[in-house]
Amino acid sequence: MDAPLPEPEPLKALIEALRRLPGVGVRSARRMAYYMLQYDLTGADLLSRALSGAVQGLRHCARCNSFTEDEVCVTCLNPKRDPSLLCVVETPADQNMIESSHGYRGLYYVLMGRLAPLEGVGPQELQFDRLLQRSSDGLVREVILATNFTAEGETTAHYLSELFRAQGLSVTRLARGVPAGSELEYVDAGTIAWAIMERRIT
Amino acid sequence: MDAPLPEPEPLKALIEALRRLPGVGVRSARRMAYYMLQYDLTGADLLSRALSGAVQGLRHCARCNSFTEDEVCVTCLNPKRDPSLLCVVETPADQNMIESSHGYRGLYYVLMGRLAPLEGVGPQELQFDRLLQRSSDGLVREVILATNFTAEGETTAHYLSELFRAQGLSVTRLARGVPAGSELEYVDAGTIAWAIMERRIT
Repeated sequence: MDAPLPEPEPLKALIEALRRLPGVGVRSARRMAYYMLQYDLTGADLLSRALSGAVQGLRHCARCNSFTEDEVCVTCLNPKRDPSLLCVVETPADQNMIESSHGYRGLYYVLMGRLAPLEGVGPQELQFDRLLQRSSDGLVREVILATNFTAEGETTAHYLSELFRAQGLSVTRLARGVPAGSELEYVDAGTIAWAIMERRIT
Repeated sequence: MDAPLPEPEPLKALIEALRRLPGVGVRSARRMAYYMLQYDLTGADLLSRALSGAVQGLRHCARCNSFTEDEVCVTCLNPKRDPSLLCVVETPADQNMIESSHGYRGLYYVLMGRLAPLEGVGPQELQFDRLLQRSSDGLVREVILATNFTAEGETTAHYLSELFRAQGLSVTRLARGVPAGSELEYVDAGTIAWAIMERRIT
């Protein structure tokens, strides 16, 4: 839907800028722009200031690479966390998910991506050297690879496991299997196959 | 998904602000925030400035109520447009849609909403008095009601048609019928019923 009506410049600029958000096409951008300008000027103002605040105020934690206001983030500085465990995740959202399971008390490293050669994302783009430096601090004994169970996540895990093993660290991967609370009838065959292969003696 | 990890304040503020966009929940907001901060700082900056630019630079056209930078918008000032026709639409997006059909050369009035009593949107919120003032300029002869064919759009059209008739204007509504290029088999029964009722002699 091209706009054949002459649109005022600030509106055009806003629609173009909104389109840069992931998952937002030209129609959504237009709807968002109209909505904010008509019903939520306060929200538009808030968002404008939040964006510039975040761009200026946030950087990557020197230890875990997640977003933080300071040199090192609160999680990495928490003395109650076990420094011998390092959990590698793709994004801060994954980190939050693991944290909300209350099943992990070690530290994290956030890759901020995954290996995707077709998109030009290699070990250099993900700064694997920084991660390897982090894991060789003498305290880390086990690295838990918690990248996604997608083709790219698996590739990343495989690649990293070789690097960590070369450092003499013990490397583990999250368990694959049937999700909690699910009925076998509705679980996909690939998952069942994994669950059988990795069955445990109880 | 609550974040049990302590998130830096600017990140929290950004996620909260993004959630005010229509159709954006907490997960999307988080994904957008991470994405912008990781991969598109320029975009975040652009969006921030586009928002404040639009909030400060745009207002409602004194004649058609659409967004404009000036007192009266370019469309309303266009001398080639027929001032005896006034097309009433709900949003600027609807206006663009009609314009892109290249089937209309009159003027517009943008309601910026529709009657929705349950949401507290009545004739006063939509400033019907402004619209009635616009339609009584002595030049307008026909008002084309192009609100949506939803329950609320129909109600709005019905309500407005009475007001315009009281002004002695001729009032029309967009035709209902089978969409161009569609096969009858796949058109819903309600549309077919309308198309039969409003069949034309050819």
